[in-house]
Amino acid sequence: MRWRDGFIAVDWGTTNRRAYRIGASGAVEDRMEDGKGILSVPAGCFPAAVEEIRRRLGDRPLLMAGMVGSNRGWEEAPYVPCPAGLPELCAQLKWVEPERVAIVPGVCFSQGEAADVMRGEEVQLLGAYADGAIPANATVCHPGTHNKWVRIEDGRIVSFRTVMTGEMFSLLAKHSILSDMLSGAEVAPGPAFDAGVQAGLTGGPLTGELFSVRARVLLGKARREDAASYTSGLLIGTDVRSGVAAAGDGPVYVMGRPDLTRLFAAALAAAGREAKELEGDEAFLCGARHLAELVQ
Amino acid sequence: MRWRDGFIAVDWGTTNRRAYRIGASGAVEDRMEDGKGILSVPAGCFPAAVEEIRRRLGDRPLLMAGMVGSNRGWEEAPYVPCPAGLPELCAQLKWVEPERVAIVPGVCFSQGEAADVMRGEEVQLLGAYADGAIPANATVCHPGTHNKWVRIEDGRIVSFRTVMTGEMFSLLAKHSILSDMLSGAEVAPGPAFDAGVQAGLTGGPLTGELFSVRARVLLGKARREDAASYTSGLLIGTDVRSGVAAAGDGPVYVMGRPDLTRLFAAALAAAGREAKELEGDEAFLCGARHLAELVQ
Repeated sequence: MRWRDGFIAVDWGTTNRRAYRIGASGAVEDRMEDGKGILSVPAGCFPAAVEEIRRRLGDRPLLMAGMVGSNRGWEEAPYVPCPAGLPELCAQLKWVEPERVAIVPGVCFSQGEAADVMRGEEVQLLGAYADGAIPANATVCHPGTHNKWVRIEDGRIVSFRTVMTGEMFSLLAKHSILSDMLSGAEVAPGPAFDAGVQAGLTGGPLTGELFSVRARVLLGKARREDAASYTSGLLIGTDVRSGVAAAGDGPVYVMGRPDLTRLFAAALAAAGREAKELEGDEAFLCGARHLAELVQ
Repeated sequence: MRWRDGFIAVDWGTTNRRAYRIGASGAVEDRMEDGKGILSVPAGCFPAAVEEIRRRLGDRPLLMAGMVGSNRGWEEAPYVPCPAGLPELCAQLKWVEPERVAIVPGVCFSQGEAADVMRGEEVQLLGAYADGAIPANATVCHPGTHNKWVRIEDGRIVSFRTVMTGEMFSLLAKHSILSDMLSGAEVAPGPAFDAGVQAGLTGGPLTGELFSVRARVLLGKARREDAASYTSGLLIGTDVRSGVAAAGDGPVYVMGRPDLTRLFAAALAAAGREAKELEGDEAFLCGARHLAELVQ
């Protein structure tokens, strides 16, 4: 069986995994998704966890990306340094089983004091470029647990910076003094989110702004039910403020889950920047298809 | 029994409590400390928890400050608005038992969009002023779970701002992707702390700086054992950066636990500001004594 006859692409993250059977034509023939992220797979049990995917989607070659290639995953696929394009990723694929099972490496950036790493986003970013959805020179914002601001030049990732926006909201909602005001409430675009964005774009440091979210509710100056959207706006506004300060001209391509990209697009608009939203899953499939072609 | 014959001062916080028997001369005759913070006292059980203090320290009038006066404590003592001095606090004491048991109210600040609250720090702040340890017009930095930057004018608290520095470090050490690098390691002054302070004083937003702590270790550009001190410096430097930007001229009085005040004093020095450290427990006793005199 050859890769051109079809393969299975797996986006295997920390807390869940998504797998797609891609046919010879490039079309998605079948898919699965479950909560079996790498942290739920005991050491030594990855072969069995992969067999489960093959039982569901068929006995095809496997191309896997994401945290499955980290030191907590199946086998570590060392980071490819910037500048990194699809050819560089393909040359550094980690073959767990010769010609049958490959893990895509992550990408690292190192310059002076700056240091950063990504795993999983690179397939989406370079897939969108290979598919023509973003130009050869572009600024991309990729929200998620760890938002990435990425500079792409000549179709390669040349630099990037991670901002802990998603994880910070989760920490605050689950474990902080704000948790009773943040957990359970839905984050939605609207006046409270917009007010938070403005505070993030123009205000002081986050640690100073956050406590006042609680104090304003206690003193009757803000509504408790607005706290989650306001805080999300505050975090995203802070993120966008530094992101656009470092970004070049032109639109910012915002790639990821639609519920997140629309929030970042709203904050970018408030910052006076044009945003173009792209669906992350679709970009992942593009990247996987192009990598499979390069494998031939 | 009258207050001038002595009383018990209690600093009753969320997770622990400290009580002091203060004699007619003002000297501390006995003291106790335990982990019975307000969150560990079931509703309706505060009288019993207070009896425990009296059994240990004697049957004296009680003056209590801190979260015991919050809506999660024994009885809510409403916030006194700024400007607030010891006379204003005394006038708004919440008498749980007439002439025998009083809770000191917290202080609130509200101006335009700004809103803030404190509970417990006010006794230390105004006690230090009443005792002559800080002048009538001063900027005070009070580190703790929630650091407070306080402006005192004519011996009254006129404005303040809370920064979630201590709680943020705790959240990151316990629950974040940085936890394996932060928990267990000791935070100490030194080159790693100083480097974090510089990043906080001059760098981008915290959420952007934090992830690079991990990435630099992964890429071999920083030592894992330095991560806790660096991150503490980063948080404190960020805090001091906004604090001194809003502070008036003159020294900054840093009041609290000595292990924290020395870290903030080091960061203030790096920011080119003179810092004077004051012991928080001592200031609490001063404030309690002066309030007891006003009660007469």
